[in-house]
Amino acid sequence: MAGERLFYLPLGGAGEIGMNAYVYGFGAEGSERLILVDAGVTFPDMESTPGVDLILPDFSWLFERSRQVDGIFLTHAHEDHLGAVGVICRSIEAPVYARPFTMEIAAKKLEEFGVSKKILREVATHPAESKAGPFTVSFLHAAHSVPEASALLLETPGGRILHTGDFKFDESPTMGDPLTADSWKRAIGTGVTALVCDSTNALQRRKGRSEASVGPGIQRLVEQAKGMVVATTFASNIARVSQIAQAGRLAEREIVLLGRAMHRMLNAALQTGVVSDFPRTIEPNLAAGLPRNKLLVIATGSQGEPRSATAQLAAGKFQGIEVERGDTLLYSSKTIPGNERAVSRIINMMAKKGVDVVDDSAEIYHVSGHPNGPDLENLHIALRPKSVIPMHGEYRHLLSHSNLAKKLGMQSLVAENGTVVEFGSCGPRISEKIEAGRTYLDGFELIGARDGVIRERRQIARNGFVGVVLRRSGRRRAEVRATVWSAGLPAQDIADFEERLEEVAAARVADKLSNSKSEDEMKSIVARAVRHEVFDHVGKKPVVAVKFA
Amino acid sequence: MAGERLFYLPLGGAGEIGMNAYVYGFGAEGSERLILVDAGVTFPDMESTPGVDLILPDFSWLFERSRQVDGIFLTHAHEDHLGAVGVICRSIEAPVYARPFTMEIAAKKLEEFGVSKKILREVATHPAESKAGPFTVSFLHAAHSVPEASALLLETPGGRILHTGDFKFDESPTMGDPLTADSWKRAIGTGVTALVCDSTNALQRRKGRSEASVGPGIQRLVEQAKGMVVATTFASNIARVSQIAQAGRLAEREIVLLGRAMHRMLNAALQTGVVSDFPRTIEPNLAAGLPRNKLLVIATGSQGEPRSATAQLAAGKFQGIEVERGDTLLYSSKTIPGNERAVSRIINMMAKKGVDVVDDSAEIYHVSGHPNGPDLENLHIALRPKSVIPMHGEYRHLLSHSNLAKKLGMQSLVAENGTVVEFGSCGPRISEKIEAGRTYLDGFELIGARDGVIRERRQIARNGFVGVVLRRSGRRRAEVRATVWSAGLPAQDIADFEERLEEVAAARVADKLSNSKSEDEMKSIVARAVRHEVFDHVGKKPVVAVKFA
Repeated sequence: MAGERLFYLPLGGAGEIGMNAYVYGFGAEGSERLILVDAGVTFPDMESTPGVDLILPDFSWLFERSRQVDGIFLTHAHEDHLGAVGVICRSIEAPVYARPFTMEIAAKKLEEFGVSKKILREVATHPAESKAGPFTVSFLHAAHSVPEASALLLETPGGRILHTGDFKFDESPTMGDPLTADSWKRAIGTGVTALVCDSTNALQRRKGRSEASVGPGIQRLVEQAKGMVVATTFASNIARVSQIAQAGRLAEREIVLLGRAMHRMLNAALQTGVVSDFPRTIEPNLAAGLPRNKLLVIATGSQGEPRSATAQLAAGKFQGIEVERGDTLLYSSKTIPGNERAVSRIINMMAKKGVDVVDDSAEIYHVSGHPNGPDLENLHIALRPKSVIPMHGEYRHLLSHSNLAKKLGMQSLVAENGTVVEFGSCGPRISEKIEAGRTYLDGFELIGARDGVIRERRQIARNGFVGVVLRRSGRRRAEVRATVWSAGLPAQDIADFEERLEEVAAARVADKLSNSKSEDEMKSIVARAVRHEVFDHVGKKPVVAVKFA
Repeated sequence: MAGERLFYLPLGGAGEIGMNAYVYGFGAEGSERLILVDAGVTFPDMESTPGVDLILPDFSWLFERSRQVDGIFLTHAHEDHLGAVGVICRSIEAPVYARPFTMEIAAKKLEEFGVSKKILREVATHPAESKAGPFTVSFLHAAHSVPEASALLLETPGGRILHTGDFKFDESPTMGDPLTADSWKRAIGTGVTALVCDSTNALQRRKGRSEASVGPGIQRLVEQAKGMVVATTFASNIARVSQIAQAGRLAEREIVLLGRAMHRMLNAALQTGVVSDFPRTIEPNLAAGLPRNKLLVIATGSQGEPRSATAQLAAGKFQGIEVERGDTLLYSSKTIPGNERAVSRIINMMAKKGVDVVDDSAEIYHVSGHPNGPDLENLHIALRPKSVIPMHGEYRHLLSHSNLAKKLGMQSLVAENGTVVEFGSCGPRISEKIEAGRTYLDGFELIGARDGVIRERRQIARNGFVGVVLRRSGRRRAEVRATVWSAGLPAQDIADFEERLEEVAAARVADKLSNSKSEDEMKSIVARAVRHEVFDHVGKKPVVAVKFA
């Protein structure tokens, strides 16, 4: 075993919230056997990534070592943990391990990217275990805002690692088993080499609250509402969706589910037996015949997503259902930073229709699915791991989590994406940094975050575009005609303005051709002249591209 | 006086936060004399308005009646109240009334747009008054997060209106006079026809806090900090900047101001006598020689603005000053919705450098400049106006404010931008709706929000662009050559891909020319063919523009 090592390498999720992907390796340096824990995505925005469909970690390091990969393990069914599994399984042939509900969702991702579902391996929870090269992996039940979330116990000749995935402690989770720090301790004992642990809520100073704590508030609200109630939350939060539906039944309301994700998630939950007693729902078209105070709609769109059911209800009808004055819209959710404007927009549209909008500002209708600072402390104390490696969080979350561990006397370090952490006899140490980054799925293509395509689109979005086609006409080479295309320029008469630019371009070429410049030199001379002309007239500096016909 | 009427018409700010502009009119219908209260802007973002420089209300209604305008009154020096004064004074010749500090800032806006400063009229506070047609206007002192904020008392033959501007009640504002609901009552008595009133914090249920309440916390933090302290806040919040500077002096630290706005605002405050005892500051280059615990930097950038002093300190050096491990960054501010990601980015960069970042999540280091729900209630009760018209706020804020007034027995209605509210003997009523909207300053040009220029830029940002120039070559018309330009497409080999598109375009024309289509028909046929080709190959649907050379 001399020269063998155990290491951890986050490719995504360490230094950001979202896009989780963690590699573990064991073996002789350079030829370690590898497993990947989670393959998540993050979502694009107009500011940084206009038009991009999905953002995933740069997996090139792993792709180059695809033959060393013995397994992919998915902790739970959130997009930021499994959204990239379809993409990467085109390049890596390895079994994908997951519990039934997660597997159901992962299967759809594979299908989308044309990958055979045969690579899926359904697992049961600890003490059941799976062998993947030198790794023996077992799935420990975790509470979280999605069914069947799991922490992974990784046993290797080089040590035992508890990789928590996303989790929270909850003594009354309303769905699935309770989880306390002691549950894990009872299951795996102590002697943990490293606790690699969720950090997203590390800055929160109060103890986390149970999922059960939101039930009574929701029930009261639904009972007291005079009109129809529309409740929105993440579709994958089946426990919450169920609690809302139960509140509806208790108030003798019929339940309508709106939004594709809502149906997809609930069906997956029913198929895999995660839920067996979900209240009866009715089709949207049956809602029209019922008094409004007999209706509860559970809809997608808690983050202001523009095509979601809630957004469409705010704008008009959705599947025959319309909101009216006196109805109530409940956000059983928190707004993820960055989505505030989109959510506000919906709230104002709803308010304009006379809908009472109730959000979670009073902290009654939503709880987080992640461990707060005091919860992390409890876990550290219960397990007493040799070291704590904070994962999943922005830098400040990782740092705060790491400081907390150190204060309790544990070894700890902050390892961002691309950091190889080796677990030796003296504890964890950073042995290497590899290039980590982001890959964009743009249409059908995977492009590097630095390829320039997105930069070009952003530049055009800000400054407009001018294309110039130059063509030598007539017998003498010096006679040049230019055809100009512009897009996104604020000129009053655009045809007129383009003609003017054509003249400027042609004149510039005529000026310079006698000097026998190369075509490339000509192009940049014309581009500069056109850019100046545009700036002088409308104050913009467009992207200018010049081409010879 | 028969047939004369008094009306209120918000052009901006009613239904949004930002972009304040309120018209008041008095006279015979159709030939009323008008005044404008505030001429604010709002800020663009990549999501909705990429590349736009400023967003202002659509002033066309007012421009068409520019000869009826007797005056422009600016309540205070925030951009969302006076940022558009330069632009509109190119089209409206009317005096601009403001108190000295506001005037100083407004003068710069006029200069920027080449408007003579001769139109400026400096005013003193109530009981001083200015006549503008049938309006007698006096400026009542208000407390707010900028010096010399004012409410306006508008006296007309048709009634008295108190237009509050932005304000808060503050018994110890640390700069300027205290303000309570009774201060205004003492000054103007009752008998107010309409209270047109700030609504931005109407949803806040706790009483607002005084500016003085943040002093001790800041002082404690500065005293206990071991390294350099960088504090960031809005530069125009001179009271806050002063409190921070005082805390620095008490801790025997030298004060450095960083960021252009910080200097501009403080200079305006000193020039107009708003501040007379600001602590001594030193130049950034002198900071290098001092121990870090002897330095307090007050910097722009509380909203994560990418070119601000704070952002540049996070990225590296700014004017020779660098942050180090053990320094402290204090956000004496709240993050405006929409800016969360930008602020988080800076915080993480600072944390990575070992800087302790302290924000206002514990509500110690910042207070708002607007009245909360209970403060509004106090004002309603003190003044007992005949009616309350909520202004400045999103729809939900206006609505909540209006409901509050109704509960207290006052008449009230929600009037969004474009709503003409007439004040008759029976109270306020909506008499008309005019077209309201937004105008963009894009480069040098003013463009309508619906002109399509920005839509085109957004489409390109999402989907890329292809320009096609077609040219008949050879003797027979049917021989066509195409030159193709693309931008922002994720093709692997772009030159190759463009050549392919050229072939597709030329082939499509050759196909169809025999059918003797018009040029316009040809263009749309080619555009469609190119768009399909692109989609089939890279999965994007670009903006395609076709032109004949």
